[in-house]
Amino acid sequence: MKLKLGIPKGSLQDLTVKLFKKAGFNVNVSARSYFPSVDDAELEAVLFRAQEMSRYVESGIIDCGITGRDWVLENGSRVIKAAELVYAKQSLRPVRWVLAVPESSPVKSAKDLKNKKIATELVSVTKSYLKKKGIKADIEFSWGATEAKTKMGMDAIVEVTETGSSLRANGLRIIDTICESTTQFVVNKKAWRNSWKKKKIEKIVMLLKGAILAEQKVGLKMNVLEKNLDKVIAILPAMKKPTVSSLSEKGWFDIDTIIDEQVVKEIIPRLKKAGAQGIIEYPLNKVIY
Amino acid sequence: MKLKLGIPKGSLQDLTVKLFKKAGFNVNVSARSYFPSVDDAELEAVLFRAQEMSRYVESGIIDCGITGRDWVLENGSRVIKAAELVYAKQSLRPVRWVLAVPESSPVKSAKDLKNKKIATELVSVTKSYLKKKGIKADIEFSWGATEAKTKMGMDAIVEVTETGSSLRANGLRIIDTICESTTQFVVNKKAWRNSWKKKKIEKIVMLLKGAILAEQKVGLKMNVLEKNLDKVIAILPAMKKPTVSSLSEKGWFDIDTIIDEQVVKEIIPRLKKAGAQGIIEYPLNKVIY
Amino acid sequence: MKLKLGIPKGSLQDLTVKLFKKAGFNVNVSARSYFPSVDDAELEAVLFRAQEMSRYVESGIIDCGITGRDWVLENGSRVIKAAELVYAKQSLRPVRWVLAVPESSPVKSAKDLKNKKIATELVSVTKSYLKKKGIKADIEFSWGATEAKTKMGMDAIVEVTETGSSLRANGLRIIDTICESTTQFVVNKKAWRNSWKKKKIEKIVMLLKGAILAEQKVGLKMNVLEKNLDKVIAILPAMKKPTVSSLSEKGWFDIDTIIDEQVVKEIIPRLKKAGAQGIIEYPLNKVIY
Amino acid sequence: MKLKLGIPKGSLQDLTVKLFKKAGFNVNVSARSYFPSVDDAELEAVLFRAQEMSRYVESGIIDCGITGRDWVLENGSRVIKAAELVYAKQSLRPVRWVLAVPESSPVKSAKDLKNKKIATELVSVTKSYLKKKGIKADIEFSWGATEAKTKMGMDAIVEVTETGSSLRANGLRIIDTICESTTQFVVNKKAWRNSWKKKKIEKIVMLLKGAILAEQKVGLKMNVLEKNLDKVIAILPAMKKPTVSSLSEKGWFDIDTIIDEQVVKEIIPRLKKAGAQGIIEYPLNKVIY
Amino acid sequence: MKLKLGIPKGSLQDLTVKLFKKAGFNVNVSARSYFPSVDDAELEAVLFRAQEMSRYVESGIIDCGITGRDWVLENGSRVIKAAELVYAKQSLRPVRWVLAVPESSPVKSAKDLKNKKIATELVSVTKSYLKKKGIKADIEFSWGATEAKTKMGMDAIVEVTETGSSLRANGLRIIDTICESTTQFVVNKKAWRNSWKKKKIEKIVMLLKGAILAEQKVGLKMNVLEKNLDKVIAILPAMKKPTVSSLSEKGWFDIDTIIDEQVVKEIIPRLKKAGAQGIIEYPLNKVIY
Amino acid sequence: MKLKLGIPKGSLQDLTVKLFKKAGFNVNVSARSYFPSVDDAELEAVLFRAQEMSRYVESGIIDCGITGRDWVLENGSRVIKAAELVYAKQSLRPVRWVLAVPESSPVKSAKDLKNKKIATELVSVTKSYLKKKGIKADIEFSWGATEAKTKMGMDAIVEVTETGSSLRANGLRIIDTICESTTQFVVNKKAWRNSWKKKKIEKIVMLLKGAILAEQKVGLKMNVLEKNLDKVIAILPAMKKPTVSSLSEKGWFDIDTIIDEQVVKEIIPRLKKAGAQGIIEYPLNKVIY
Repeated sequence: MKLKLGIPKGSLQDLTVKLFKKAGFNVNVSARSYFPSVDDAELEAVLFRAQEMSRYVESGIIDCGITGRDWVLENGSRVIKAAELVYAKQSLRPVRWVLAVPESSPVKSAKDLKNKKIATELVSVTKSYLKKKGIKADIEFSWGATEAKTKMGMDAIVEVTETGSSLRANGLRIIDTICESTTQFVVNKKAWRNSWKKKKIEKIVMLLKGAILAEQKVGLKMNVLEKNLDKVIAILPAMKKPTVSSLSEKGWFDIDTIIDEQVVKEIIPRLKKAGAQGIIEYPLNKVIY
Repeated sequence: MKLKLGIPKGSLQDLTVKLFKKAGFNVNVSARSYFPSVDDAELEAVLFRAQEMSRYVESGIIDCGITGRDWVLENGSRVIKAAELVYAKQSLRPVRWVLAVPESSPVKSAKDLKNKKIATELVSVTKSYLKKKGIKADIEFSWGATEAKTKMGMDAIVEVTETGSSLRANGLRIIDTICESTTQFVVNKKAWRNSWKKKKIEKIVMLLKGAILAEQKVGLKMNVLEKNLDKVIAILPAMKKPTVSSLSEKGWFDIDTIIDEQVVKEIIPRLKKAGAQGIIEYPLNKVIY
Repeated sequence: MKLKLGIPKGSLQDLTVKLFKKAGFNVNVSARSYFPSVDDAELEAVLFRAQEMSRYVESGIIDCGITGRDWVLENGSRVIKAAELVYAKQSLRPVRWVLAVPESSPVKSAKDLKNKKIATELVSVTKSYLKKKGIKADIEFSWGATEAKTKMGMDAIVEVTETGSSLRANGLRIIDTICESTTQFVVNKKAWRNSWKKKKIEKIVMLLKGAILAEQKVGLKMNVLEKNLDKVIAILPAMKKPTVSSLSEKGWFDIDTIIDEQVVKEIIPRLKKAGAQGIIEYPLNKVIY
Repeated sequence: MKLKLGIPKGSLQDLTVKLFKKAGFNVNVSARSYFPSVDDAELEAVLFRAQEMSRYVESGIIDCGITGRDWVLENGSRVIKAAELVYAKQSLRPVRWVLAVPESSPVKSAKDLKNKKIATELVSVTKSYLKKKGIKADIEFSWGATEAKTKMGMDAIVEVTETGSSLRANGLRIIDTICESTTQFVVNKKAWRNSWKKKKIEKIVMLLKGAILAEQKVGLKMNVLEKNLDKVIAILPAMKKPTVSSLSEKGWFDIDTIIDEQVVKEIIPRLKKAGAQGIIEYPLNKVIY
Repeated sequence: MKLKLGIPKGSLQDLTVKLFKKAGFNVNVSARSYFPSVDDAELEAVLFRAQEMSRYVESGIIDCGITGRDWVLENGSRVIKAAELVYAKQSLRPVRWVLAVPESSPVKSAKDLKNKKIATELVSVTKSYLKKKGIKADIEFSWGATEAKTKMGMDAIVEVTETGSSLRANGLRIIDTICESTTQFVVNKKAWRNSWKKKKIEKIVMLLKGAILAEQKVGLKMNVLEKNLDKVIAILPAMKKPTVSSLSEKGWFDIDTIIDEQVVKEIIPRLKKAGAQGIIEYPLNKVIY
Repeated sequence: MKLKLGIPKGSLQDLTVKLFKKAGFNVNVSARSYFPSVDDAELEAVLFRAQEMSRYVESGIIDCGITGRDWVLENGSRVIKAAELVYAKQSLRPVRWVLAVPESSPVKSAKDLKNKKIATELVSVTKSYLKKKGIKADIEFSWGATEAKTKMGMDAIVEVTETGSSLRANGLRIIDTICESTTQFVVNKKAWRNSWKKKKIEKIVMLLKGAILAEQKVGLKMNVLEKNLDKVIAILPAMKKPTVSSLSEKGWFDIDTIIDEQVVKEIIPRLKKAGAQGIIEYPLNKVIY
């Protein structure tokens, strides 16, 4: 049996391939083929645009795939979310689809968009949003370059953004968030009921998460005298008990732990002050709790 | 008054900018803006995807634009075709949208596609085509990578091709041509009735065509004795009368003409044999008959 | 005898080498040497930064060189200006060194800069400017990144600009122009009195100018019936009499002329209307009146 | 005393330099020199084509070098093989030199090649192969592009391949394997008898192998309760005893081991199921058993 | 409160940003801004040329910055040296500013330069050097390409060099060293008296040094029988006591230590001979003693 | 009937394709195929290394090909030389294969090489050279990097050079020239006797030569008063009679001629002095006398 897996073509592709590599799967994308090879005889990979991934998962053409929550919603696909995978390009925050108007527009909130023209790639989600608010507006599909559309006769746009800086650079003001989106590992309902496939998927997800976590964590090792042990351990984040082993040299202990890469710069000076010696930080490939 | 002109963003963009440059218009596309600058105070340029260009021309957001005939048809836009501009990437032939199936498929012609699944970017045109043939099939919008879709549960695809080589490389067999498409200069109906705009458009089109023609033509100049004049002139294509001027040296004439670059290699040996001397070929920037 | 010529290293280098190539001199800059080879046995080239070129010309270390008027002024070098060469990067206009302050600064004109801090690469020229205006201020040499200096404690800057866009992007407001600068061919005074060197320089300058002019001009050729001759010639710019030759075919004339590339797009439609036929535009390498 | 070491120029060069770097030797190849510098005063490196490396090792011009077994055979060089180093480009399998004919050729096996024309870069090895089989054929040296030679009058070719895909793409069918080849560290016989050189070579080989092994291995660390210890250890590959240390927290043990990177994805889920906690995988630079 | 930090623009920029990343600070330099973002709310970064960094630190425009000792001296800036950071491009040795003359020059030592012309970017330091030696010479500021200046009328130059190879390639002979320079973390005097700023700086320096040290060190782990323990430990550099922990398997110990990457290639063979087994080397991110 | 044409793969390939393009043949080399397409139904192209081209021409596998005279000699191929085509990379001079020894070698001339070791790619030609001189030496085939071979135990090398600079940079001294080589269009003897093939080849050669010539020539046009006509014409090189046509404006003549690009810079100043006005230089695509 094989598990059919969809890998998102385009902007997420390289990051996804890298992530699978760290997780232990070598995915080889060759220039002219949509069927990357994988060094796992139980896996069969195919490249799809994130925009249509969930449709192919829903219809069972593939068993599972990686795509954004936004496009699952847009397609209205009924699929299982096996995991959220936070490995976006610039930050760890979810991306947002926002409603935006020109800075100088009199529009203050969504209500002011009655009978106005809105351009977006995310037509269905935008329609639901407006319907829920009881607003009637003219929503047009945009093939890209959406940020420029308000200079071309459109009153507002709905566009994806991480930090908002590209919108600001285009002279746009955000007035609401339509939906937030993260990268998801979605699964076909029938495949999820197949126990072999479910187990295989759970293994893959465990390894992907282990690889993602490892990018945010580092190993930290240090030597501590018995009398300083409590003080030093108290500084370490409680996330996971550190491994404390007594050394052959009497009265000395070795502490080995995993901490968040972001707090290292705060903790190291404090550890040193508390008596830790020979502190080393080392990189990790995977972290699985 | 300004003429608003749409330039196709994406695969045709660089070629279009180059063509305008040869025609005498410096179009400067800056990395983050959709509004290129043009060194003509009467022109205002904007970048749109070819796919949506005709919609913006039709609604009057821009006066005119360059796009493919395929997308004018797909959008069902009622616009004026001011000119056909043949400056495609690989060849001078129009591109074709073809119906294709896997080589091993039992499907022989469109009729065999009854109730089958077809993936395409050109949904409307495909629907009209099948309707006209009286065939009912399930047509799905494809976000790209359409060539691979028959390996993913689709029975057929409708895809654009110039030489068919990419389709063959994907193991596909062409069974019919849905539509042919060339690059067109399309104009909004109201703008076309405005005499200033119409004249401005006609000037631009004349210069664009002059630049395109110049890429296919070269200048040819040679010296000929009076007695050989008829023989030599007979060899030159009849496209346009060559400029024959008598030289100060008695009995000698200078012939200066424009011929198709493609026939030069056939003609030069014959000209030489017919008595032409000092033949030179020189490049052209524009050719306007 | 050899003429020692300085070629500006850095931003103008590639353009200068290209210009010399068009003028008929192959200048070969090899990666690790400051002494490019030239295919003219009477020439010896050396690379200097534009900033110090005029000092080396003045002291006679080289006979002549290409640099900006700004740096001739800054160095206070007494050299002969043999020619102005307009081949700047973005436009044909001279660059300007401007006095600029933050948009929000209360400073309105140079006078308001009394006792303020000004950063610039062009220290001497800035000092003369302020002295002439009777303003005392604190001028500091800036090693670059001058645009950012007002955010770092400086009250104003003097910086070079072509269009002002980079200054605007850095939130700066121009309050005055300190000096304008074009690219110049400057010559050592003693070398200029040497008749062999002077003649050699004049030849080089003639060819450089011919190459520059050719980039702004194109050749235009067309056939005209005798009755339309005056009408057509009247349209052509008066810059230089067109070459009109009678063709062997009776009543027809060939007009061959050189016109400014910028006006071609205006003139061609008018020529055609006036009866010109078979209009062709061809490129030029050199134009020497 | 110095050890003279040959590094293969060309396709293996970058990989070899990288491998030496991981092994602890910084080899600096400068663009124009064939003598890279090495940060080991006892080493002197030189670049040779893999094709002629063994000839220079045999004649004693260098003491040792890295090359393919194929070219050692082709040159018939009598040298010592100190080690096999598996660090090939695409895979870990040895490359093969194969005898291939066009797909449509009637040739089924080597025997059918009697009096036929064969093109190859590996002339001697091919001759030996045919001689052993008692087949007489006409073998011609090919300067490259060997895959295309059967379309040019040759009946068969002998060419190197890793996966056979390039041969298939050229319409060729493999009918036999002439020889297999791996990368080898070969040594001059006299140098091998010199004890200082031999020891030096053995050290280098140990470090190179340690670096190669580290690319295929990862470190794995986890915490386990005493009662789960046997279960967890049983899952770990028997390659090397894991380091088990008791933690200060009673009843807990830390397991630290090295495993094959390829099996990690299978083992981690099983370890977790068996009670391992806080599993981390970390990268290695060298592994020396 | 914020600490204002200057990051050197230009040749050191990428290395510095990488170093901060390893130290735990993500510095994001965007193409058009001189104000990189940092993911530490207490830090504010700005890009300055190394040449003027110390002037801005001295005047308090920034609190601290990274620059070369040479430019601190040249500017005569009174600043605090918080740390030396050895992360130069090619080697770990300090760079040198040397006095150099053409190979064929009669000048043997600085004394022979009386009344001669010297070109340099480091005018003040060169002047002090000559003054101390009681030599009067004519020192000119050079805008770059200093190595070529002796071919242009200069008698000597003072130029920076790491290995001297570029000077030799330009036919120059070094006759003295004017000053040595390393990269320094310099601090404004007032900022250093502010205890919050001082502590912040000390933390940053600790992390930067930890990151630099980690590039020169690696972790080394091995298993040893009790009887070999002393022999093995004796081989390890005395820099820091290794962590020795007894394993659950009786009589075996695990040694874990940090050693200089440069000595690994010498030590591993000796460790193995002394009875160490399963030696692995692993990479480090930070090392803080 | 088709003419089979060999195009040299490798260093000459791009230049050759460009030359054919200028001559009027579009040769399309695709990345993975050795059979470029040509837009001439009578031509069939194939890529071969220059080293083996003449062997394939001689045996009739192809009708004709482009290669160096050196490799025709080395292979001892009996082929027809249809033309010499001077379009080498750096200069227009033929390349030379030279005998070279280290600068410090006692070897003064070929005679001193008795019993010495010589490395070369051109084994046969070198053998003939030495035989003719009655010198016995040991000649070894070199797979490249020949310039470094004298540092590796070889006493001399035979290597190709254009300017000798690479040899000098490797510390080598030229002691003799073994053979000179130009690029040649060689033809199979039998193909040359086939009149259709011969005519086709002659046409191709005429166009290739026309394209090569055009790179060395430019068009020059100017207006001259009748009284200055003789003076001006006397300055123009006698290579070909200039086209002199009388203008409609009385007393004025237009001179149009083709001259060597290299002499333009000398001639233009003299023409101007002699009364020529409105001198323009224009580029050429082909020149066929």
